[in-house]
Amino acid sequence: MAILTSHEVDTPEVAVRAIVFDTFGTIVDWRGSLIRSLKSFGTEHRLEAPWEQVADRWRAAYQPNMDRVRRGDLEWTVLDELHYMALVELLPEFGIGSLTEPDLRFLTSCWHRLAAWPDAIAGLLQLKRKYIIGPLSNGNFSLMVNLAKFAELPWDAIFGADLFRHYKPDPETYLGVCGFLRLRPEQVMLGAAHNYDLAAARKLGLRTAFIPRPTEHGPRQTTDLSADQSWDVIATDLVDLAERLT
Amino acid sequence: MAILTSHEVDTPEVAVRAIVFDTFGTIVDWRGSLIRSLKSFGTEHRLEAPWEQVADRWRAAYQPNMDRVRRGDLEWTVLDELHYMALVELLPEFGIGSLTEPDLRFLTSCWHRLAAWPDAIAGLLQLKRKYIIGPLSNGNFSLMVNLAKFAELPWDAIFGADLFRHYKPDPETYLGVCGFLRLRPEQVMLGAAHNYDLAAARKLGLRTAFIPRPTEHGPRQTTDLSADQSWDVIATDLVDLAERLT
Repeated sequence: MAILTSHEVDTPEVAVRAIVFDTFGTIVDWRGSLIRSLKSFGTEHRLEAPWEQVADRWRAAYQPNMDRVRRGDLEWTVLDELHYMALVELLPEFGIGSLTEPDLRFLTSCWHRLAAWPDAIAGLLQLKRKYIIGPLSNGNFSLMVNLAKFAELPWDAIFGADLFRHYKPDPETYLGVCGFLRLRPEQVMLGAAHNYDLAAARKLGLRTAFIPRPTEHGPRQTTDLSADQSWDVIATDLVDLAERLT
Repeated sequence: MAILTSHEVDTPEVAVRAIVFDTFGTIVDWRGSLIRSLKSFGTEHRLEAPWEQVADRWRAAYQPNMDRVRRGDLEWTVLDELHYMALVELLPEFGIGSLTEPDLRFLTSCWHRLAAWPDAIAGLLQLKRKYIIGPLSNGNFSLMVNLAKFAELPWDAIFGADLFRHYKPDPETYLGVCGFLRLRPEQVMLGAAHNYDLAAARKLGLRTAFIPRPTEHGPRQTTDLSADQSWDVIATDLVDLAERLT
């Protein structure tokens, strides 16, 4: 075992025991993957639609639907079901009203089959040697398990919103992770491509790592291109993060 | 994709999507590992005790302490803390009353560093290609995460008793796994070396796999040497289980 100097013991890098990651956008390219799946479905079913717009509008329903759960207008509902409800509302706007329930369920399950960003797996494998790693996602637990198997994400443990029955950025999610891991907030780092997520985690005492994903929302993305605050680590990608922390 | 005959579709092997495993005894050799850790601690601290007996008495405190939680005599308490409380009570019986709090915490953490049975990792790696695999243990989530990292158990997801705030064989644990995985009970199999655990799971509709561990409690073990019921699968070890199911 390496002998640590007192300086090293004080650095956040040494104190952190676990790193949890936002997943949609930070670890996987949900937009590119979803567009490919939708286009393929369209070809098979002889449906024409502007599939990039469908994907973007689908994702855009995410925050308003979670807000309905947060306000109590909708009882606790997992992301798979929010995705399904949003899709049912959305498709008629694009002139698609004829899909069967199994088709709609199949399309919803495309969120379980998203490709990792090219740097993600190499970075996670390196981080896993030193830290407990896992997703902390608004996706439900089963979605995160299926996604991990599909994209070969080498998580140590899975955290989904349904473990806490709260959506990020509610404090119950970040503190819930600390509770289950029996770690203090300063021993847990959140890695995310979204400043709002890191801000919520930092307020509660967690460490923060910003990994910008400037094309998460496509080539004309305007949000989260740079760090809003001086996060504990700002990395270009997950391999860079792993090199800084290990 | 393989074409399944209708016969194959009906077999439990095809329907099962996830296999969760009892861990202490079924996956890891808690007794052998604990005795080695206790002996090593004893040598370092110049303490003499019949360490096999200490290990057995420590484990024997497990059911009564969980029963206190079940009856409500003790508020929800994770296994790490039950282990700690039991150790504090137990050591004076062996003439050991002088340990510091850090020493007691260190000994309790030995439950996080238990060796897998020799067949466990190979069997789990094979099962993981086809099924979602995870522990379903009365150990707390963090204990199961640490144990998985120590013993290199390739779980897809971790289930610990604190996710449900119930101990097996309470139904909330088995059904809680099905709920988080969004699977029906018949799509989930429990693998265990203990008949009582399988009986509780079967009552709720889960599939069952018995993997006897005839030396879990040492060379003179008298319990769980054979199957009490016709479990769905009876395997000699985890490699055998994997060969039967994949």
